[in-house]
Amino acid sequence: MSRPLKIAAAQLGPIAREETRTEVVARCLKLMEEAHALGVELIAFPELALTTFFPRWYFEDQADIDSFFETEMPSAETQSLFDAAKKYQMGFYLGYAELVKEGDTTRHFNTTIIVDKTGEIVGKYRKVHLPGHSEYEDWRPFQHLERRYFESGDLGFQTFDAFGGKMGMCICNDRRWPETYRVLGLRDAELVMIGYNTPVHYPQAPEHDHLQDFHNELVMQAGAYQNGMWIVGVAKAGKEEGCDLIGGSCIIDPTGQIVAQAKTLEDELVFFEADLDRCDEIRKNVFNFQRYREPENYTPITEPKKS
Amino acid sequence: MSRPLKIAAAQLGPIAREETRTEVVARCLKLMEEAHALGVELIAFPELALTTFFPRWYFEDQADIDSFFETEMPSAETQSLFDAAKKYQMGFYLGYAELVKEGDTTRHFNTTIIVDKTGEIVGKYRKVHLPGHSEYEDWRPFQHLERRYFESGDLGFQTFDAFGGKMGMCICNDRRWPETYRVLGLRDAELVMIGYNTPVHYPQAPEHDHLQDFHNELVMQAGAYQNGMWIVGVAKAGKEEGCDLIGGSCIIDPTGQIVAQAKTLEDELVFFEADLDRCDEIRKNVFNFQRYREPENYTPITEPKKS
Repeated sequence: MSRPLKIAAAQLGPIAREETRTEVVARCLKLMEEAHALGVELIAFPELALTTFFPRWYFEDQADIDSFFETEMPSAETQSLFDAAKKYQMGFYLGYAELVKEGDTTRHFNTTIIVDKTGEIVGKYRKVHLPGHSEYEDWRPFQHLERRYFESGDLGFQTFDAFGGKMGMCICNDRRWPETYRVLGLRDAELVMIGYNTPVHYPQAPEHDHLQDFHNELVMQAGAYQNGMWIVGVAKAGKEEGCDLIGGSCIIDPTGQIVAQAKTLEDELVFFEADLDRCDEIRKNVFNFQRYREPENYTPITEPKKS
Repeated sequence: MSRPLKIAAAQLGPIAREETRTEVVARCLKLMEEAHALGVELIAFPELALTTFFPRWYFEDQADIDSFFETEMPSAETQSLFDAAKKYQMGFYLGYAELVKEGDTTRHFNTTIIVDKTGEIVGKYRKVHLPGHSEYEDWRPFQHLERRYFESGDLGFQTFDAFGGKMGMCICNDRRWPETYRVLGLRDAELVMIGYNTPVHYPQAPEHDHLQDFHNELVMQAGAYQNGMWIVGVAKAGKEEGCDLIGGSCIIDPTGQIVAQAKTLEDELVFFEADLDRCDEIRKNVFNFQRYREPENYTPITEPKKS
């Protein structure tokens, strides 16, 4: 082990609609305390980790929507996470709904941050691949209105120098798209953190419901292997407000193998001591990008969509 | 089933160096006969299916190298495959080493073709992602001189209207690169055929040898799911001239599930009745490219390599 990093996925069980941010943060702090006992240096929380997964409902009143968003980070309710980072010398990845005021306009993003061991925000990402739909659809048993409540992220897929390596982030549906991993890989990401809220039930193709765990693992394992990177996938899991969410939070090594995985659908810590140098096993061999990629053959991938 | 297509992977066991093309073709014809009894309409043979996998040796004399290449297709030795296609009304995908004379120069490609039910060549592909190395390396237990004996394909990843759908091809190492599937997917491929010769032993990272089957399945299953396409992966398998090759030939549906797979490392037929319309289950939903792709975020993927 030449660049060891003790990492953890902090899976969260369901968050009820009436649960306050303070109550959720207390659950997160408990997982950080547990992680500290293991010497964890970097802990990852899920997508939209501070509230219930609100895009499952259609709200008419913008104030109702905005109540799920953070206007500052840290906030009064989340400051204790930053304090714990400093106290435990443990960085974190956290997902939340971000409301940005720009003059008279407000913008809404599905956002994650990386906070370092000193409690400083050192990286931000805004979800690019928004799934679901933008209008109310009455045939659905629950809505998936991410395309109504968020705009697509404007920061691209960046990497950040932290924790002795190159860190990357993406969010939920981003993990299904191989371009996500590839752009991060081309930017030398060694560890990518991915929070998700994934319903078991996919109303458009319910015949695939039983494949949700398989697909979750398949895309993350392929992304890890094809780019020679560590991946931490972390779920909000369990039956949340009547909607079943998959679990399966896991840590994947650069060969694509799952080396640690959640066993429950509840608050649960998944731990592994990673070696960031292991990325070289892949990146210097089978996926030596500089030697083996053939970008002149890839041009359709970046062509604009037909309007 | 609204667009059914009976397909088969025709896995080949090892081909000895002294085995003639005529002998190999006889093995292929036997598999076609077996496939015909099942009503197969399209059968896929492996990469470089007519000879032993010759890039494992270093040859100094160009005539020795060229002896493994075809200068015409069909040739006297392969005509019977084309005749069988017509007789059985069964198209095929076939890999071979292609030597092209252009004036005073000769060019060498690792090539596959699609032949339709009338025995006509309707598509050609030349391998883009060449693995291995270009100079003799004496530390290796066997060579992998694809980068010496072939040039990178000049035809890109095209799709072809045949068998009632859009057909795509790639070869061996191409299948490890997500860009391969994505370009074919953006060009509406519904079925992609992939022949391979994959040594069990990877000399640069022998600690990964036990993962060869896992990686083979992982990349093809991810490619199928992430693009909503059928995949036929077909191996040359078994111990060939002292070199162990993986098998695992399989048919994968557009959800990424392996629906049929070889059980041996020998000549073996793997059969499935596919429904090309099932691509829509994925392409019209979770991977609706027109709706959900975000190409402006993918630009690093097509940037030229640093020189």
